[in-house]
Amino acid sequence: MVQKKKQRGQLIVLSGPSGVGKSTVISELLSERKDIYFSVSFTTRQPRVGEADGVNYNFVTREQFEEMIARDELLEYAEYVHNYYGTSLRVIQEKLAAGIDVLLDIEVQGAAKVREKCPEAILIFIIPPSFEELSRRLHRRATDAEDVIQGRLCKAKEECKQIPQYDYLVVNDTVSEAAGEIISILTAESCRTRNRINLVEGV
Amino acid sequence: MVQKKKQRGQLIVLSGPSGVGKSTVISELLSERKDIYFSVSFTTRQPRVGEADGVNYNFVTREQFEEMIARDELLEYAEYVHNYYGTSLRVIQEKLAAGIDVLLDIEVQGAAKVREKCPEAILIFIIPPSFEELSRRLHRRATDAEDVIQGRLCKAKEECKQIPQYDYLVVNDTVSEAAGEIISILTAESCRTRNRINLVEGV
Repeated sequence: MVQKKKQRGQLIVLSGPSGVGKSTVISELLSERKDIYFSVSFTTRQPRVGEADGVNYNFVTREQFEEMIARDELLEYAEYVHNYYGTSLRVIQEKLAAGIDVLLDIEVQGAAKVREKCPEAILIFIIPPSFEELSRRLHRRATDAEDVIQGRLCKAKEECKQIPQYDYLVVNDTVSEAAGEIISILTAESCRTRNRINLVEGV
Repeated sequence: MVQKKKQRGQLIVLSGPSGVGKSTVISELLSERKDIYFSVSFTTRQPRVGEADGVNYNFVTREQFEEMIARDELLEYAEYVHNYYGTSLRVIQEKLAAGIDVLLDIEVQGAAKVREKCPEAILIFIIPPSFEELSRRLHRRATDAEDVIQGRLCKAKEECKQIPQYDYLVVNDTVSEAAGEIISILTAESCRTRNRINLVEGV
């Protein structure tokens, strides 16, 4: 009844407001699911303290980014707080074809573009337990000036209006719970009949 | 952002061919998720050795069952190998409204009727690793005569044609893996945006 055929990889999009703790959740997720390929985005913004080129982002100049746009090399890109953020298409296609799950950390505009181009992508939005808690987390991070923080909080409320386009909603109350829910979502998606039907003879 | 409102319970339908090990998977699942209410079906078939009334099934006579049909008390019912199997509607509705997840163990005809009446139900089909393994399991059980076993194997192939109506496909290779996948499916479904959107203010 079952023939073990290689499933195509799943394309997973994670979004969430700045300060929600997405990077921490992603680290936890990747330590549990080492088979997932985390797609490092390209950006024109300045590295924060502790961020490394090729790890957190591929940091490029505005000119380099606009060349990638011109050569149609991006799955999606968006401008956000005066900086470009984008995702390379070629690497992702290779990984998915090889049966490897690919994780993208992108904001709501980018997610909408991925949904258009890859309707089978799994879109997950991470929310904080409350706006008050989001504000506390942004202040605790202490990497941004007060007006930038206020801008991020305002942006967060705007972004939440895009939640209905997401398949799943995960509350980052504790990192381990949030990562656990995402792992369950990925397991469940791999059990979807449409992804496993080729395992059954004669159907 | 988040207001803890009680979610409605999820209606979960588990199907799978006779001998696939569904009862064992269900026991494992219920020992991990004690909050799930397992809906005991009504049937007119004879109890097998070790089966108890009100636990495995509510065992009733053909006359009693036909009265329930006449009073429209059943969410679904079906005749299968010359016996009726059916599910009481009232209890299920109460549990779901109270936010309790309800698990139904029903065959493919019944599942199709549940899907019609409750489009939001989660339909999961359990398959064995192979037909050869299914045959081995049916013989190992040693509760049925050879011609009954052959009938069940033939029926199993027929049932597998209904797999496309199911949302998820779980392979019962080991009981703990199968139960684990079902638990992940239930967690993922509770994270669906449509089930959590009321947690977010202003969306």
